Amino acid sequence: MSADEPAAAGHGFAPPYLLFLGDCTEPGYAKTAFGLRDWAGDRCVGEFALPQASVSAGLERLTMGEAAARGARSLVIGIANSGGKIAPAWIPSLAEALDAGLDIVSGMHARLADIPELRAAAQRSGARLVDIRTPPAGLQVGTGRKRAGKRLLTVGTDCALGKKYTALALQRAMADRGIDADFRASGQTGIMISGGGIALDSVVVDFAAGAAEALSPDAAADHWDVIEGQGSLFHPAYAGVSLALLHGSQPDVFVVCHQPGRTHILGHETYALPSIEEVIELTTMLGRRTNPAIRCGGAAFNTAGMDRAEAHALMEREAARLGLPVADPMIGGPPLARLLDSCLGS
Amino acid sequence: MSADEPAAAGHGFAPPYLLFLGDCTEPGYAKTAFGLRDWAGDRCVGEFALPQASVSAGLERLTMGEAAARGARSLVIGIANSGGKIAPAWIPSLAEALDAGLDIVSGMHARLADIPELRAAAQRSGARLVDIRTPPAGLQVGTGRKRAGKRLLTVGTDCALGKKYTALALQRAMADRGIDADFRASGQTGIMISGGGIALDSVVVDFAAGAAEALSPDAAADHWDVIEGQGSLFHPAYAGVSLALLHGSQPDVFVVCHQPGRTHILGHETYALPSIEEVIELTTMLGRRTNPAIRCGGAAFNTAGMDRAEAHALMEREAARLGLPVADPMIGGPPLARLLDSCLGS
Repeated sequence: MSADEPAAAGHGFAPPYLLFLGDCTEPGYAKTAFGLRDWAGDRCVGEFALPQASVSAGLERLTMGEAAARGARSLVIGIANSGGKIAPAWIPSLAEALDAGLDIVSGMHARLADIPELRAAAQRSGARLVDIRTPPAGLQVGTGRKRAGKRLLTVGTDCALGKKYTALALQRAMADRGIDADFRASGQTGIMISGGGIALDSVVVDFAAGAAEALSPDAAADHWDVIEGQGSLFHPAYAGVSLALLHGSQPDVFVVCHQPGRTHILGHETYALPSIEEVIELTTMLGRRTNPAIRCGGAAFNTAGMDRAEAHALMEREAARLGLPVADPMIGGPPLARLLDSCLGS
Repeated sequence: MSADEPAAAGHGFAPPYLLFLGDCTEPGYAKTAFGLRDWAGDRCVGEFALPQASVSAGLERLTMGEAAARGARSLVIGIANSGGKIAPAWIPSLAEALDAGLDIVSGMHARLADIPELRAAAQRSGARLVDIRTPPAGLQVGTGRKRAGKRLLTVGTDCALGKKYTALALQRAMADRGIDADFRASGQTGIMISGGGIALDSVVVDFAAGAAEALSPDAAADHWDVIEGQGSLFHPAYAGVSLALLHGSQPDVFVVCHQPGRTHILGHETYALPSIEEVIELTTMLGRRTNPAIRCGGAAFNTAGMDRAEAHALMEREAARLGLPVADPMIGGPPLARLLDSCLGS
């Protein structure tokens, strides 16, 4: 979503952002900050870190006042810790941000407004506390009504293998071709990156399909929504989430995300990973209920950690076997262009 | 569930019950009271109604004090009104029940504890305010682990056509044969009737399959859980709920509930009702993910309003066509016995 556009249904918060790195010393905990740098770099004015932090997103280090003076409107918490807590060491800096007029955007489990110092500072300055895990008010149950515009949904053989990055890469590739396209975030990091969306995992189950409908509203006939998928239809815990998102998204096209070498559902060692063909077949069958024209555009492989030549050879073999383009969206190049061609039906 | 057994995972509240009819003058609003009378009559000591009420469940009318003296432990709100509100006219009587030591059990949207008079009365007497729409604390995400014991799930071509009554009738028929069987409620009226369960429609979507797992825990190898279904895999708003419940329930057997003559999903006139065969095929395919041995036991028809002879002829034709027993569980008799035989695999 471009910075001057209204936010998608759900949470909206204003760019540009200052990235908050707190006291982070472990790069693995700063994935949200890195995702924002990679996918929303044009909306980041800099980063803020406490003296004891050793992690950097490589942006200019600014004080809250400096960031505000450069036009920053939101401080985005770009780090996680185990437990999803707001660390006491962060609170004085967060209060300082509010006093400088910055909104604070958090994807933590703990709610910002439950911290008295932050509530008080927000009341003083009028800045907002935005908890993106809190579902937006007024969600409705799904209607199943066909909406105008075109939609692409990323689905997967499992969780945590690239559905968000694939959607971001495809939206960016569309924009590069001059196609009017929005990325629609269904998870917290995606919401941080795009500045809007709905954290589907926090919605009450009866409203899940309705939330997915709200996430990609009616649009111009040639507009594309590229929707971040969740879970997998084959996941023993999250298939219901995936089906609600599939029905509510009513995609024209889906892309199957996969990580070569993964053999079982993460954390569920008795559940074999489905084949890509099984995912295509089931997604098509179930997706037809709300969009009879649904089709598979191809597959996106997460080949991080593989030898590059080996990855290319594997993707070529798989593309030939499936009769569909296969690309690693983080590598891009001609395979990604072919995947996009297939998705666009051109 | 028998009265002396511990409640299923989720809400538990103590029998026997006094049924609260408030100021109800419209029988259509007293379905919960009628359901309790029909399915949990042995746990109901009587009913309470205000002078202006004209509806009765046909039980002895008692004051709060009389009910307590006869051993009643819970006042169950057996009526609904549009909006799911606690009417102001009810509050003095509800407070009186709490003062008499009765817990209050409500399936309304409004929370009992949000009414100051009731909160105060409960604090005075130590009686509990039980809102069965509030999900139990501590729900986990699903594991997909196979549990001991046998499970039957009712599924449907749509909502609101008899999944709860079918499950209740099959559990009762099992008990009549001396089979150790529990009804497991996944909706508010079922919870009222059985005294336990989880209102699945109020659970956050990430925990929906886990809630279904908690609803039918490990049991003895020859024990049956008969689980109340929700929604339909073909429902544009609720299919995600149905899939989470299917995966989490991991049923050995399912029964397809259907209302002859219904042609479209209720409230979604562009969605054709699926055929029974389509429901069997999709339920079997998706259910295999958590229980590879899943099979269809037959179909339950809701023939209320049909000519009895016509209904019987239709069910015989459908049974021959499907090659599976078809019965109206509210009529019972030999067709229900055949359906149960098929479910039990005998």
